[in-house]
Amino acid sequence: MEFTVNQVAELLNGKVEGDGSLKVSRLDKIQEGKPGSISFLSNLKYEPYLYTTQASAVIVQEDLKPSKAIHTNLIRVKDPYSGFTQLLEAYALMIRADKSGVEQPSFMDESSIMGENGYRAAFSYIGKNSVIGNNVKIHAQAVIGDDVSIGDHCIIHPGARILNQSKIGNHCEIHSNAVIGSDGFGFAPQSDGTYKNIPQLGNVVLEDYVSIGAGTTIDRATLGSTVIKKGVKIDNLVQIAHNVVIGENTVIAAQAGISGSTEVGKNCILAGKAGLIGHLKIADRTTIGANTGISKSIIEEGTTVHGYMGFKIKDFLKSYAIFKKLPELQNKMIDLEKKL
Amino acid sequence: MEFTVNQVAELLNGKVEGDGSLKVSRLDKIQEGKPGSISFLSNLKYEPYLYTTQASAVIVQEDLKPSKAIHTNLIRVKDPYSGFTQLLEAYALMIRADKSGVEQPSFMDESSIMGENGYRAAFSYIGKNSVIGNNVKIHAQAVIGDDVSIGDHCIIHPGARILNQSKIGNHCEIHSNAVIGSDGFGFAPQSDGTYKNIPQLGNVVLEDYVSIGAGTTIDRATLGSTVIKKGVKIDNLVQIAHNVVIGENTVIAAQAGISGSTEVGKNCILAGKAGLIGHLKIADRTTIGANTGISKSIIEEGTTVHGYMGFKIKDFLKSYAIFKKLPELQNKMIDLEKKL
Amino acid sequence: MEFTVNQVAELLNGKVEGDGSLKVSRLDKIQEGKPGSISFLSNLKYEPYLYTTQASAVIVQEDLKPSKAIHTNLIRVKDPYSGFTQLLEAYALMIRADKSGVEQPSFMDESSIMGENGYRAAFSYIGKNSVIGNNVKIHAQAVIGDDVSIGDHCIIHPGARILNQSKIGNHCEIHSNAVIGSDGFGFAPQSDGTYKNIPQLGNVVLEDYVSIGAGTTIDRATLGSTVIKKGVKIDNLVQIAHNVVIGENTVIAAQAGISGSTEVGKNCILAGKAGLIGHLKIADRTTIGANTGISKSIIEEGTTVHGYMGFKIKDFLKSYAIFKKLPELQNKMIDLEKKL
Repeated sequence: MEFTVNQVAELLNGKVEGDGSLKVSRLDKIQEGKPGSISFLSNLKYEPYLYTTQASAVIVQEDLKPSKAIHTNLIRVKDPYSGFTQLLEAYALMIRADKSGVEQPSFMDESSIMGENGYRAAFSYIGKNSVIGNNVKIHAQAVIGDDVSIGDHCIIHPGARILNQSKIGNHCEIHSNAVIGSDGFGFAPQSDGTYKNIPQLGNVVLEDYVSIGAGTTIDRATLGSTVIKKGVKIDNLVQIAHNVVIGENTVIAAQAGISGSTEVGKNCILAGKAGLIGHLKIADRTTIGANTGISKSIIEEGTTVHGYMGFKIKDFLKSYAIFKKLPELQNKMIDLEKKL
Repeated sequence: MEFTVNQVAELLNGKVEGDGSLKVSRLDKIQEGKPGSISFLSNLKYEPYLYTTQASAVIVQEDLKPSKAIHTNLIRVKDPYSGFTQLLEAYALMIRADKSGVEQPSFMDESSIMGENGYRAAFSYIGKNSVIGNNVKIHAQAVIGDDVSIGDHCIIHPGARILNQSKIGNHCEIHSNAVIGSDGFGFAPQSDGTYKNIPQLGNVVLEDYVSIGAGTTIDRATLGSTVIKKGVKIDNLVQIAHNVVIGENTVIAAQAGISGSTEVGKNCILAGKAGLIGHLKIADRTTIGANTGISKSIIEEGTTVHGYMGFKIKDFLKSYAIFKKLPELQNKMIDLEKKL
Repeated sequence: MEFTVNQVAELLNGKVEGDGSLKVSRLDKIQEGKPGSISFLSNLKYEPYLYTTQASAVIVQEDLKPSKAIHTNLIRVKDPYSGFTQLLEAYALMIRADKSGVEQPSFMDESSIMGENGYRAAFSYIGKNSVIGNNVKIHAQAVIGDDVSIGDHCIIHPGARILNQSKIGNHCEIHSNAVIGSDGFGFAPQSDGTYKNIPQLGNVVLEDYVSIGAGTTIDRATLGSTVIKKGVKIDNLVQIAHNVVIGENTVIAAQAGISGSTEVGKNCILAGKAGLIGHLKIADRTTIGANTGISKSIIEEGTTVHGYMGFKIKDFLKSYAIFKKLPELQNKMIDLEKKL
């Protein structure tokens, strides 16, 4: 499908500078733009590419003042990044075939029901007494267990596992090989050094607009629910243990891990590989740095913490700067001792 | 199903204080107790909830002396936590449908055999020459490779992979999407900078009562076996490399990783995200802290280590306390230098 | 199958010392050698086993001078490790059944094509418009999406997911439950604190001779491609984010993670649990230590870095040695202050 630069500008409520009649059919990064593609400039670090790109048009800030001659055409908008995202969405709708119907062989127990306009791929599996809403796409090899509920407009990618009793809201996306509702890691130590399995009878609840990354594991609660609240976005290979609660709109990057019963507030950010021990409370709007371990609750809202056993990032960075110079500090100490 | 408080007390060998004729049908955490549910108080941190809970009964320590008025009924027992675990088990048996039989389509090569009272879900796959014991439940999408043996009373959860030549003992549980028997990461560097694949011809052996978490990967040995001994419990997203040996009753928390040929002793605890380099020996009863990296063997039994390149936890915490105050230490140093 | 020690020596271009007529049928580690097995001695740390092993023959360095009496037979070669690897390969060819044909039920959309001498296991799934080369083995439960291309001589292990638009070269091996082409983690923050999904329209490209470990996740690019270049070897449970580029012959150990748009050079080594933030450039031949976090680009080729926020390993180890002695350093400081 092709559009003119003018048509794109109209869609984005922008103003064309240059040839609006040119045709574009592809989206490219500005440094990789080719004739026929449209790109965008948001982070000014990439401005040099504006003067060399071969893209047919570039979406830019409405008040951008180019510092050199421009060989492409501009679409000026309020927010180029949002504008481009809008285009991406339109483009995604165009190119992504909307799968529907039922491929065979697939398996759905006769006690389960599925709403309208759904898709069940070959080798997808749905157990007993599960209720699945409208516009839900269940891809190849996905497993939906027994007594599961899934709302409307959800996408369950290939190989995702949504185990017994899980409750999934509307507009959720579960990526490939994620596991929702595996048993919590609960073992009672016995006097002879062995461990006895503690049955995990709770479940996992995902509210609306939750996204779960590929290979991520979310354990069911021992009792009650492990809860991922509305709008939470979780990246790949993250571990969420039993009885954890994640507040609304919190974002968790890849390979982070949260131990049992910890409650993370709203609008927090956990960077990659962050680790939290169990039974903590993390205040709203906390930012936890990459590879940061947290072993105490965080009370103050809006704090940014960092470090091996994380504390306030400003303090951590000061200490770490000196850590790097410890040999120097030690030498000074030895000098001082000699002088005395 | 419903029981009276008296019936539960009898089961737990406990003593009722209050109305033993009340009916209970659910298990809840004490802070979430509702009429009709039974709860427990073990960690005294939760004692305040004893005075506000709406649970119909709470299992408590036999010698507990309440400090306020109580509006629920008590069941006094020796060990409330064990008692509650016992109830959980009874409850689990009641609510977990015991699946059996064969769903179609499923695949089992005619050279393989499976014992009595088993379950093979739709889309489960069993390769050639595999031998599976009695009371084994193989859930949807699980793969059992060629020449695999599995003992009695095992549960293979949806999407678990038990690859060729693996040997699984009795009473083992393999959670969703775990991979047992993937190739070890072995590549021989060549003079031109490329790497040549080293065939991985060994296998993985799991002894009895082993539990493997969701998404965990255990690589086969290059030669011989990667061995997970009796009673070992491994959490989610853990990596066990080729030729590793894990001693009896060792517990490994989520996202820990153990490199090739390392041998971990008995009754050890590895906390979340712990990492061990290859070819180490870790003494029995070692505890390795969260996010702790280990680059040397640990000889002394019963040691607790912690830190980025972990050492004894007492020493680590002392050093880390000063690390946090390094800016102060540096300032003192500067003052001293000025004074001289 | 059985060979004589003489036959093995001939294969390896080696010289027999002892009884060349003995028959061997198995490969064992030297410390586990039994009559009828052949072993090797490369790392001299294992030399003591040479004098006690029950293996029928041991492959050793051509100039090895035993320090004690030897009760086994030797095959002297230039490089015992390479020689043994050669044997492993020959042995692997012998014992690994070469699967071919199509097991049922399996699913391949009629618009997709597959070359000669392939294997499609039961419950494998191939979507629309995918093109698969010759000698490709697709094991049980593997999913190949739409518009995927796979070259010749690839092995797709059970449960691996190769999602829409991925391009896989020749001689690639994708281990169990790896996910190639999951969505990049891209969400645009909105003014009300929620996040909006940014469509991920790019793909993943794996060049020739790439190996991807079990449970590893590689995200598709937002636009363009996430690229894993020729000869790259990636271990288990590794996370590769959108738009990352990994240079030729780079090796990445288990549980490492690389954030979006970072470019890693050629012939680098990332040890286990290494973590790189986004938008970095890492020079060729960089070595990044275990559990090391990298937050800045590395310009100088051939550098080895280590530490929590990694810097040059020599400097890190110096600083860390003093970190361990910080309590002592602080005490000295207090003494100095008192003296003044």
